[in-house]
Amino acid sequence: MTPETYLARRRAVISSLNTSTTASALLITDEANIRWLTGLISSNVAVLLSGDSTLLVTDSRYAGPAADVSDASCEIARDVAGVALRSAVGAGDPPVAFESDSLSAAGLDRLRADTDLARISLIPTVGLVAELRTRKDPAEVRLIKQACEVSTAALAALLDQVKVGMSELMIARTLEFELARHGAEDRAFRTIAAAGPNSSVPHHSPTHRTVSCGDILKLDFGAIVGGYHADCTRTFVVGAAPTDRQIQIHELVQRSAAAGRACLGAAQAIATVDDAARSVIAEAGFAQYFTHGLGHGIGLEIHEPPLLSAATAGTLTQGNVVTVEPGIYLPGEFGVRIEDTCVVTAGHAEVLTDFPRGLIVLDR
Amino acid sequence: MTPETYLARRRAVISSLNTSTTASALLITDEANIRWLTGLISSNVAVLLSGDSTLLVTDSRYAGPAADVSDASCEIARDVAGVALRSAVGAGDPPVAFESDSLSAAGLDRLRADTDLARISLIPTVGLVAELRTRKDPAEVRLIKQACEVSTAALAALLDQVKVGMSELMIARTLEFELARHGAEDRAFRTIAAAGPNSSVPHHSPTHRTVSCGDILKLDFGAIVGGYHADCTRTFVVGAAPTDRQIQIHELVQRSAAAGRACLGAAQAIATVDDAARSVIAEAGFAQYFTHGLGHGIGLEIHEPPLLSAATAGTLTQGNVVTVEPGIYLPGEFGVRIEDTCVVTAGHAEVLTDFPRGLIVLDR
Repeated sequence: MTPETYLARRRAVISSLNTSTTASALLITDEANIRWLTGLISSNVAVLLSGDSTLLVTDSRYAGPAADVSDASCEIARDVAGVALRSAVGAGDPPVAFESDSLSAAGLDRLRADTDLARISLIPTVGLVAELRTRKDPAEVRLIKQACEVSTAALAALLDQVKVGMSELMIARTLEFELARHGAEDRAFRTIAAAGPNSSVPHHSPTHRTVSCGDILKLDFGAIVGGYHADCTRTFVVGAAPTDRQIQIHELVQRSAAAGRACLGAAQAIATVDDAARSVIAEAGFAQYFTHGLGHGIGLEIHEPPLLSAATAGTLTQGNVVTVEPGIYLPGEFGVRIEDTCVVTAGHAEVLTDFPRGLIVLDR
Repeated sequence: MTPETYLARRRAVISSLNTSTTASALLITDEANIRWLTGLISSNVAVLLSGDSTLLVTDSRYAGPAADVSDASCEIARDVAGVALRSAVGAGDPPVAFESDSLSAAGLDRLRADTDLARISLIPTVGLVAELRTRKDPAEVRLIKQACEVSTAALAALLDQVKVGMSELMIARTLEFELARHGAEDRAFRTIAAAGPNSSVPHHSPTHRTVSCGDILKLDFGAIVGGYHADCTRTFVVGAAPTDRQIQIHELVQRSAAAGRACLGAAQAIATVDDAARSVIAEAGFAQYFTHGLGHGIGLEIHEPPLLSAATAGTLTQGNVVTVEPGIYLPGEFGVRIEDTCVVTAGHAEVLTDFPRGLIVLDR
């Protein structure tokens, strides 16, 4: 990202702040928001945005990269939020907004107990920067696309290595090794590898359980490239031809996913997209086994707004990057999920996780 | 852990609550605390502890494991903290303590805005359960020891595979693959592999930079077994005999680490342990290059109390599991850290990460 990009983002935040609150400055403590606004990666950081000025406070571990941030002044301290807020004291003591979903109650208590800050009134805000982050610019979409390409290339490299008798854990770690070999800076999240009945748990943590002949194998995984995440799920059968039941459920999820992807588009109501995918499963009588929302936004974090669910108000916008991931989970039996990362375009959407969605049999 | 263990832990929490606050119930929202008190692993969970009763609230994804928790009632909901707190309404409306370092300011605002909860006064607490978790019982120490054994076995398996020309990222991922192959359920944290000048950054994130002949290679890594973490750092030279400077700095850190480990013991002042290790480095004139505390507690989380630093008040206790990890970081040149996970015993301490600490040359 260029310094101009970061400056434009900060201006958009101030503009949004001015229209939604009486505050003229915003204390930012969410790490992903700070990375998005400055490029700085730090695990102990706060930013005070105020008009045209940006103050970055982080601790000595990050002094080098913090000094390199353009168009910002920088202070080194441990108590990052307190020091950032102190810079707002004086000059009429205007109210300062803060990110109340990122600051802990104890952190807020500490700021409120600080006598140096007594004249600053703090105004809670939720999701102000996150909302702006939902519309990805072309450079962000390129990075997510790269992360998706790395992810699908790693999956292709994994499939020949999956054998009956391999544990879920070794499959997960082998896939993560392939992510690195194909250029990922890290996994986007702890890879889910779920075999047999474990696949009926939507967010199963991989175990030492080994894959048996005829097992369903559900893999949910993704790469990080340039800080941006990919998210992809494919479901396989291992060691034997699939049963009619496996074929039926897999085909149903495949049709549901296709319907969801086809429904994506700028100005489309989010609840409509959820319904487009869900109704395919509901009409076949499996509604109760699709137990989660259809998808979520993705970017610098693996889960970002917008949540794609029946309960989400609002519409999609060009530049939204979202997952579409219907699933059917038959308790004690097996589960199938098919998930793609997609960018909403001026037309409909582009699917970034380009990998076959049919029911592939491994180790046969 | 047995159901009796969990019950005893909950009783200890109630007892600590009674001595430190006026509240008779505690709302627990920290995931690691909830795992420690009930065994339940959930990413959306709250517990209300009150006298002898335990109410667990989690969402439908975790309904199965939540129902299996002994000596607790269970409710399924999305708004876990709100529903847990609602159970305290009535019966005289006693004040309820909550974990103010785990609940966000927005989460607290939501509870306070809930008219059903209007009569409950909420009392902030910090670190009440974390303090009890610092004294590990024998079953916990066994799991940490296993995690350490997996970690050192994985390191041994890695070393033959490290070659000049390999990237930091591939070294990190190969080590993580070996952790899994040796029985880890996951990595304890994102592995640090830092080569050449990158080793002078204490918490460097691995990059595509490849190892050059004569580079220092710093590896900071660990396994998770049964939820418990290991943490180990060793520093190597790759492809060439070490320089005198590398030998000097490595030997100094080795002596500092040994002094720190030797100083561990029940009733020992924490600041004294930090000083024992730091003074070795300071006396050689490198104090300014040892830029962080000596170590930290470790258990269900990678960083837990107590922090081992000059500024930490208090003493060590039998059952504390802590890291001892002095380092010298010469900016732009190289850095060395040697880190072990140790349990404080009735005598001094047992080192759990049993791996040579001398300067080993790889790929030669």
